[in-house]
Amino acid sequence: MQQERPFDLLNKMIGQKILIRLKNGIDIRGQMVSFDIHMNIVMDNAEELDGSELKAKLGTILLRGGNILFISPV
Amino acid sequence: MQQERPFDLLNKMIGQKILIRLKNGIDIRGQMVSFDIHMNIVMDNAEELDGSELKAKLGTILLRGGNILFISPV
Amino acid sequence: MQQERPFDLLNKMIGQKILIRLKNGIDIRGQMVSFDIHMNIVMDNAEELDGSELKAKLGTILLRGGNILFISPV
Amino acid sequence: MQQERPFDLLNKMIGQKILIRLKNGIDIRGQMVSFDIHMNIVMDNAEELDGSELKAKLGTILLRGGNILFISPV
Amino acid sequence: MQQERPFDLLNKMIGQKILIRLKNGIDIRGQMVSFDIHMNIVMDNAEELDGSELKAKLGTILLRGGNILFISPV
Amino acid sequence: MQQERPFDLLNKMIGQKILIRLKNGIDIRGQMVSFDIHMNIVMDNAEELDGSELKAKLGTILLRGGNILFISPV
Amino acid sequence: MQQERPFDLLNKMIGQKILIRLKNGIDIRGQMVSFDIHMNIVMDNAEELDGSELKAKLGTILLRGGNILFISPV
Repeated sequence: MQQERPFDLLNKMIGQKILIRLKNGIDIRGQMVSFDIHMNIVMDNAEELDGSELKAKLGTILLRGGNILFISPV
Repeated sequence: MQQERPFDLLNKMIGQKILIRLKNGIDIRGQMVSFDIHMNIVMDNAEELDGSELKAKLGTILLRGGNILFISPV
Repeated sequence: MQQERPFDLLNKMIGQKILIRLKNGIDIRGQMVSFDIHMNIVMDNAEELDGSELKAKLGTILLRGGNILFISPV
Repeated sequence: MQQERPFDLLNKMIGQKILIRLKNGIDIRGQMVSFDIHMNIVMDNAEELDGSELKAKLGTILLRGGNILFISPV
Repeated sequence: MQQERPFDLLNKMIGQKILIRLKNGIDIRGQMVSFDIHMNIVMDNAEELDGSELKAKLGTILLRGGNILFISPV
Repeated sequence: MQQERPFDLLNKMIGQKILIRLKNGIDIRGQMVSFDIHMNIVMDNAEELDGSELKAKLGTILLRGGNILFISPV
Repeated sequence: MQQERPFDLLNKMIGQKILIRLKNGIDIRGQMVSFDIHMNIVMDNAEELDGSELKAKLGTILLRGGNILFISPV
């Protein structure tokens, strides 16, 4: 039996700090607020990273799921 | 329990100033008027930005949701 | 309550002069005749622009919605 | 009230000479025979153009709608 | 009334020699065996062409419809 | 009447050696084990080819159908 | 009769070490935790590889299925 299916993991990450790697190679780090069935993600205190360096502070963002390569708790 | 799901955040941004980062890297800033289920967005006083510099005044636009990377209140 | 949802704005633009920015960066200007649910657009007196310069007269065209970045009244 | 919605215009172009601009920038000119709901198009005497010059005679073709930027009567 | 809608033309090409231009610019020539609703195509004696020159003999292939630019009887 | 529709050909290739040309130009050769409605393919003893040369042994793989240009019995 | 259809193979890989080749050419190696119908995959101890060299430790990730070229047990 499977444990922690993909959307269960998303649910567990609410309120936690996450890192999202985008298809275009950019990393976004921040606190996960919510998601929907398309994997659209709301994040607070989002930061755009260039490797491990801070490139820009984005604040609260709604990110469209179609741009995501992977999501990871940090 | 989740708070402020993605489309709730969109709803809260109506009438507010927002910034939209497009998949092609361009930023559009303006006042959000409305949206639909495809995340198509109507904006007033929209401006195209090149980094933080104003590149062009676009006025009222209807932006197709499929082009969006993220949306952020400003 | 939302006012002027995306397809309401499209409806209001019928008969008006509009500018369509395509995903490939090209601008098409002309008079909007009609649209459908896929945002396919019929335009009269359509012109292809290179920046603000006229590049080609296209006449009546049926433009597929999937190519559109944004639509704006002019 | 809208007049001549996108698929009405397609219907009116049957039997007429049309020009199709593809997403890859190539122009195809020929006589429109028929279409379907995906905007797949059958053309007779189709010609591939490079700007206004004839590049290749294609004869009868069935063109997949997903490749189309716009269609225009000529 | 329309004659020979796109899938009627496909049907008429069964058993005939056809040329398929792919979205990536490559031409495949061969005898059409069958198709389905996604425009997936089975061909016999398929050949990959570079312009009008034979580049490779492919034999029987099942080509996914999403790769097709146009199909033409030859 | 059509013979050997696309998914019939897939069915006939089960247990046979096949070659899959991917959209990115890479060839994968191996023994076909199974497929599903999305044309996802399980292969045994899969090998990545660079032209006709062996580039890497991949073993058993599950290949997503959306990456496929064509499939051919070898 | 088919044996081990694509999603059966996915099911068998739960708890096993797998390698995922992405469409952009990057390899991700780790332990498969779970999957869903879109082939979204949860992995533990995920590592990004550059050829056979370790490029980055990613830990637990949720990878979107649309980015996958193939999945392989290792």
